[in-house]
Amino acid sequence: MKYSEMNAEQLAAEKKSVESLYEELKSKGLKLTMARGVPAPEQLDLSINMLLHCLDGDCRSKSGADCRSYGVLDGIPEAKELFTDMLGVEPSEVIVGGNSSLQMMYDTIIRAMQLGVLGSEKPWSKYDSVKFICPAPGYDRHFAMCQALGIDMITVEYKNGDLDIDEVERLAASDETVKGIWCVPMYSNPTGITYSDETVRRLAKLKPAAKDFRIFWDNAYCVHHLSDDRDSLLNIIDECKKAGNPDMVFEFASTSKISFPGGGISVICASKENIDFIKKQMAFQTIGFDKLNQLRHVKFFKNYEGIEKHMRAHAAIIKPKFDLVEYMLEKELQPRGIGEWTHPKGGYFISFNAPEGCAKRVVALAKDAGVILTDAGATYPYGKDPHDSNIRIAPTFPSIDELRQAMELFCVCVRLAALEVRV
Amino acid sequence: MKYSEMNAEQLAAEKKSVESLYEELKSKGLKLTMARGVPAPEQLDLSINMLLHCLDGDCRSKSGADCRSYGVLDGIPEAKELFTDMLGVEPSEVIVGGNSSLQMMYDTIIRAMQLGVLGSEKPWSKYDSVKFICPAPGYDRHFAMCQALGIDMITVEYKNGDLDIDEVERLAASDETVKGIWCVPMYSNPTGITYSDETVRRLAKLKPAAKDFRIFWDNAYCVHHLSDDRDSLLNIIDECKKAGNPDMVFEFASTSKISFPGGGISVICASKENIDFIKKQMAFQTIGFDKLNQLRHVKFFKNYEGIEKHMRAHAAIIKPKFDLVEYMLEKELQPRGIGEWTHPKGGYFISFNAPEGCAKRVVALAKDAGVILTDAGATYPYGKDPHDSNIRIAPTFPSIDELRQAMELFCVCVRLAALEVRV
Repeated sequence: MKYSEMNAEQLAAEKKSVESLYEELKSKGLKLTMARGVPAPEQLDLSINMLLHCLDGDCRSKSGADCRSYGVLDGIPEAKELFTDMLGVEPSEVIVGGNSSLQMMYDTIIRAMQLGVLGSEKPWSKYDSVKFICPAPGYDRHFAMCQALGIDMITVEYKNGDLDIDEVERLAASDETVKGIWCVPMYSNPTGITYSDETVRRLAKLKPAAKDFRIFWDNAYCVHHLSDDRDSLLNIIDECKKAGNPDMVFEFASTSKISFPGGGISVICASKENIDFIKKQMAFQTIGFDKLNQLRHVKFFKNYEGIEKHMRAHAAIIKPKFDLVEYMLEKELQPRGIGEWTHPKGGYFISFNAPEGCAKRVVALAKDAGVILTDAGATYPYGKDPHDSNIRIAPTFPSIDELRQAMELFCVCVRLAALEVRV
Repeated sequence: MKYSEMNAEQLAAEKKSVESLYEELKSKGLKLTMARGVPAPEQLDLSINMLLHCLDGDCRSKSGADCRSYGVLDGIPEAKELFTDMLGVEPSEVIVGGNSSLQMMYDTIIRAMQLGVLGSEKPWSKYDSVKFICPAPGYDRHFAMCQALGIDMITVEYKNGDLDIDEVERLAASDETVKGIWCVPMYSNPTGITYSDETVRRLAKLKPAAKDFRIFWDNAYCVHHLSDDRDSLLNIIDECKKAGNPDMVFEFASTSKISFPGGGISVICASKENIDFIKKQMAFQTIGFDKLNQLRHVKFFKNYEGIEKHMRAHAAIIKPKFDLVEYMLEKELQPRGIGEWTHPKGGYFISFNAPEGCAKRVVALAKDAGVILTDAGATYPYGKDPHDSNIRIAPTFPSIDELRQAMELFCVCVRLAALEVRV
């Protein structure tokens, strides 16, 4: 029976019953964390050969470069190829970096603040304020980065399962201090949304007031399908070229959730003109990234087909976890009419919307009973969810058995929080 | 016979003879580079086991952390230990980073510009100008970094084989926009100078006008002795503590010239308060550096004694190259009384001072005959050597035979340039 259809007496009885369920689960002394999108150890074991045969003493790029030594700022050609094939770009449109695409994003923005990007009239920090458009719910580290670097955030909520492109167009055109937009365009963190073709085309055709506006295209989950039933995403770099805005996008990706989260390789893609400009700035920061790790990845994956195959092995491990979460939510919450959740075809998250005003309470209840969830609000700029509703469920790290226990508790917490509001 | 003692006729005859020597060498079509301090392939082979046995599948830090995964921003404890033993600091005074200490320096400065350092009243970029004291001749990449980030440089020439600490004290105290000083305090690039104990103590006792003044202590060559006849350097972090200036220094080092230039690990050391402040800023840039490479280094070197032993093997390879350069200079130039050069006990360079006004010409002559040297002027801020005299000789990369040919040509170029000025 739906909570909305219960009378006061029924709700009170249900609350009493759920309270006792909660106490029972709490007494089990769980210690689980589902706070972040982290691959499980079994997923990392898929790349064990990188820690065994490794390079077998080899250290030469096919370009002839000794990968042990200095240089090759933009990455060895065979590492570029892995990414050009994955992302549909040219080698001249790529810099292969170190172990963190987050670092590439941060470095890109702090350089923009201090020095400007290609076409900037002045460094961004010379404006009284700089603003970024932040689709939400979104990735907390994007928002935290803006906050740390003094960039104001304008929240734009998703609409009908896609970016609210009308609002984005309006905001970009409104003010030359609006310098950028954060996008996780495929299997978005946390919503699982993939931008429609129309949305990508309209983004590519944006007419921002700022000549040095940039789309920060964090394509973190571009090959992270859960099955053969896949979303597809238009190539933003192609679309920007077609739209006469070739320099308007910086695309980022990495192997953090392909090989190793802490020991992968990252990439920034953009127009050749952007890349040349970035390389000139970057040459003062470093002589080059770790080419041995780039070579290690090439030798392990061989080519893009190797990555594709590898991702199927990841999916085989994590798909059952997504299935379990959806099963538990359907079984426990659907009949009671509380909460809404996404059905992603890829990525690392299920986005759950609790009844308005309940998210913080759900997270606190779960924490008190030993299950750590992402902080409520974290998926919104400044950590403030205007509805206090969104909770990011990250099912990949726990084992199936742990996940079952955690979700059992989670559903009880949602029921209890929903009842507390009604009773 | 010294050129200074030759009459016009003798000089003309000598010039003619040297010109023909130069043409003869030029006709050999050499193609050699001594432009940068790069280890030879044989030196990199010393660490081949890192590319063979590598990790043998192991990926656990002794802390329990899975080095494949996210996190541990400041580095795994066993990697910290390598550096704490090497540099005489506490684990809480260390962040172990990625493959580039240059990147750590750049990131430190761009954060200072954008956000400030511990104790800053405001970000450095909010001043009309920011200045760094730049002992010269020095490391070109330090100077280029300042120029790229809009920091003005004040050149302070070395004096009597040591830092001109009187002048440094005066400059630091003169103006609150003087925010830092670059130091390569041991086997300095390119002079080979190691700061005396008095100099280090007076640096630690500086009374800068800027409360957020920082010594950038690039201890790049701290274990890079050429033999058992070693220089020694006081511990700046200890001395700053004793002097009541615990937060005034950022120390940098790396394994770039210990293991692999492109695939090593780097470190920043500073007071715990500085490190805590930096970690808070850095947490927005990255979730953590490559811990697998940190673990790889620990497994290979085991401990600081392992590094010490390894450096003796490096010395065995490069000491003969330094000996050869000094031998050639003594044989070819000393009798003719042209040029002065250093006799370093470690590091990667011999610093050569050509007769005033001759450095650019020497480098150009060498280039025309197929030997690339570091650009004349590169060792001074803005690339401008006021004496047009200093040339950095980097003997490590070529083979002994190549180096002999290169130095033969070099000496002829110096003679020719010196004669062109006199005749």
